[in-house]
Amino acid sequence: MALVNEHFLKLPGSYLFAEIARKVKAYKISHRNADVISLGIGDVTQPLCPAVIEAMHKATDEMAQKSCFRGYGPEQGYDFLRDAILKNEFAPRGIRLNRDEIFINDGAKSDTGNIQELLRWDNTIGLTDPVYPVYIDSNVMAGRAGTLENGRWSDIVYIPCTAENDFVPQIPQQRPVDVVYLCYPNNPTGTVISKKELKRWVDYALKNDVLILYDAAYQAYITDPEIPHSIYEIKGAKKCAIEFHSFSKTAGFTGVRCGYTVVPKELTISTLDGESVELNPLWNRRQCTKFNGTSYISQRAAEAIYTPEGRRQVQQTIGYYMQNAQKMLSTLQSLGFRVYGGENAPYIWMKTPDGCSSWEFFDALLFGAQVVCTPGVGFGPSGEGYVRFTAFGTKEKTDEALERIAKWSNK
Amino acid sequence: MALVNEHFLKLPGSYLFAEIARKVKAYKISHRNADVISLGIGDVTQPLCPAVIEAMHKATDEMAQKSCFRGYGPEQGYDFLRDAILKNEFAPRGIRLNRDEIFINDGAKSDTGNIQELLRWDNTIGLTDPVYPVYIDSNVMAGRAGTLENGRWSDIVYIPCTAENDFVPQIPQQRPVDVVYLCYPNNPTGTVISKKELKRWVDYALKNDVLILYDAAYQAYITDPEIPHSIYEIKGAKKCAIEFHSFSKTAGFTGVRCGYTVVPKELTISTLDGESVELNPLWNRRQCTKFNGTSYISQRAAEAIYTPEGRRQVQQTIGYYMQNAQKMLSTLQSLGFRVYGGENAPYIWMKTPDGCSSWEFFDALLFGAQVVCTPGVGFGPSGEGYVRFTAFGTKEKTDEALERIAKWSNK
Repeated sequence: MALVNEHFLKLPGSYLFAEIARKVKAYKISHRNADVISLGIGDVTQPLCPAVIEAMHKATDEMAQKSCFRGYGPEQGYDFLRDAILKNEFAPRGIRLNRDEIFINDGAKSDTGNIQELLRWDNTIGLTDPVYPVYIDSNVMAGRAGTLENGRWSDIVYIPCTAENDFVPQIPQQRPVDVVYLCYPNNPTGTVISKKELKRWVDYALKNDVLILYDAAYQAYITDPEIPHSIYEIKGAKKCAIEFHSFSKTAGFTGVRCGYTVVPKELTISTLDGESVELNPLWNRRQCTKFNGTSYISQRAAEAIYTPEGRRQVQQTIGYYMQNAQKMLSTLQSLGFRVYGGENAPYIWMKTPDGCSSWEFFDALLFGAQVVCTPGVGFGPSGEGYVRFTAFGTKEKTDEALERIAKWSNK
Repeated sequence: MALVNEHFLKLPGSYLFAEIARKVKAYKISHRNADVISLGIGDVTQPLCPAVIEAMHKATDEMAQKSCFRGYGPEQGYDFLRDAILKNEFAPRGIRLNRDEIFINDGAKSDTGNIQELLRWDNTIGLTDPVYPVYIDSNVMAGRAGTLENGRWSDIVYIPCTAENDFVPQIPQQRPVDVVYLCYPNNPTGTVISKKELKRWVDYALKNDVLILYDAAYQAYITDPEIPHSIYEIKGAKKCAIEFHSFSKTAGFTGVRCGYTVVPKELTISTLDGESVELNPLWNRRQCTKFNGTSYISQRAAEAIYTPEGRRQVQQTIGYYMQNAQKMLSTLQSLGFRVYGGENAPYIWMKTPDGCSSWEFFDALLFGAQVVCTPGVGFGPSGEGYVRFTAFGTKEKTDEALERIAKWSNK
């Protein structure tokens, strides 16, 4: 008799964004002429840049000819892209990595989940709170989260990041963790981590044999030269950290599907007998067994963002979104709201006024200004009393949303 | 202290095709002018058909414009493709499925592995033997295989398919299984399953609450109208089977990455308490949490194979490969070899002569004719004494390889 993985049954029925979509749909049904603007879901709105489009056409044409047709690619990704990443993302920051430490993926979401297959089911997971829900849900499925009680999973160690501690994640003191997820620039708070604070985490991980899963999906939005783009800017990080990158937000690849995961050869974790095991060959084996590589065309598309034109064009789009962010920050501040993030990240994290709950504020904003935000509590218990806005809208819609918010809040 | 999933450490060091590549490389180093022809790995050689190329260019152009740019797609795939699949693959065979029972994937390899996340770690797995190595390795990683002893995993139930039983998989009698993988047309043997035999499996599964994982990746190569293309042609299969499809071999998508997985709503498995659980919503939740959909361009490419031109062009390429298969069958037969498969599948399974082992024959053929086959034992213990040839080469190379084999075997 086939038996189900019962951990799946512990997951609450509905996912944050599905719940938001349901509420917006209900609002639209009862307000037929309403023009709702979403600053909620973090999807991009600007088209792919010309250099990428050109590369995709060229790659498509290659697939039409016997002489240059490409079948199965390497599961780890093509060397042309791995080398472009090494040269453009890491070498300029003084980070030396080898080609076989870079694994091309189909986006960071898959790999931040799949990497857990290399880990025993009973590792204790630490998570900054609020957090990208995928880290939690995928660990629930694997049986590492325990049970849900009052919005908290019993076996997860929550590391609160709120205005009270200036959004700086503190090393957990009460209960040791085995694996910790860090995401900087942060989704959802839009805050960043300094080299000094990140070094504290690396030192802690090295001392306690903790594995850091570092999600750098938003690093392209960093403008401050002091903020690290990669955890490998910190000495020793190659011994304790896996890093996830995505071209989704860097170059608008949410529909193209390409990114990369860095698993350094120096990185080891332990068997129950205390023996050290290198994770790089295990991840390679996992990918060769359960993945067949990313689309050739997507890989050529990603390569194109490292050409001189590609770099310039991608920067231009990032600048476009960051102008939205700046305008959102200044407008919301001028209206008296307390806002965070938005300076080195495409997200703005806002304290709800007057002790309002996240969902109360969500409803009030939807009904009052026809603007959709994301309730902070959907990202974890420490997100209660906050909402998230994204800068990925068009300039026109963002401006209009801000005008509506201004009008509504001045009532 | 982060702890490794120790099941990974049980996997033998090298993967079948890596071992073949190593042997071929060594041969080429010591025989510098040798022109080696590979009939080993199952990758296609013919370019994508014009209808697919056109669709990919068009989709790329859409991504260049704000008005029709596509960001995140549905994790389950776009409706246009799900509907095209229902209309073209299932409706004509009298199979009624709903759109939300079709999940677009990035190839069957990922999903035949990932589907296991829905299953408890202690289900007993049944596998036809020889078998696609990915089914075994991915179950080893999940802890379901036990330990490796003399080429056999202690917790796997092997279902031998050899010339002695006419390659018909028999229901396991000694030990009950909870989950069974069936792949038809079969990789590696190229044999097919009749409706009558498949019905025996469905009836067995329904009676014993067994889950069938049915891999139909090669169904497009079926020419005999009596052979089922889908397990859902058998009554009751929707209650007990998940089916995996891929466009890799159907339309040369090995570098494009697109396929689909069917999880019917009627399908349930059990909790330890004996409660029935529907797998469709669980798989949907898994995909929403750990997958972000397949590339938009790959999905438009797949849609194009269902246009009238696309269908014709794809059929032409399949015909090209099947001509290779026919020629291989007749030539090898005329040389006195015992060959199987190759009539409704792109693989030919050949008994090695004179009690030769798989690897002995591999070496002899490489050194004697500079032709690469795949040693059958690499697919499991019942593959010993066989080798696999694929029909995916070019006509020219296949013809030349056959001439060389003829010359060599007549020596």
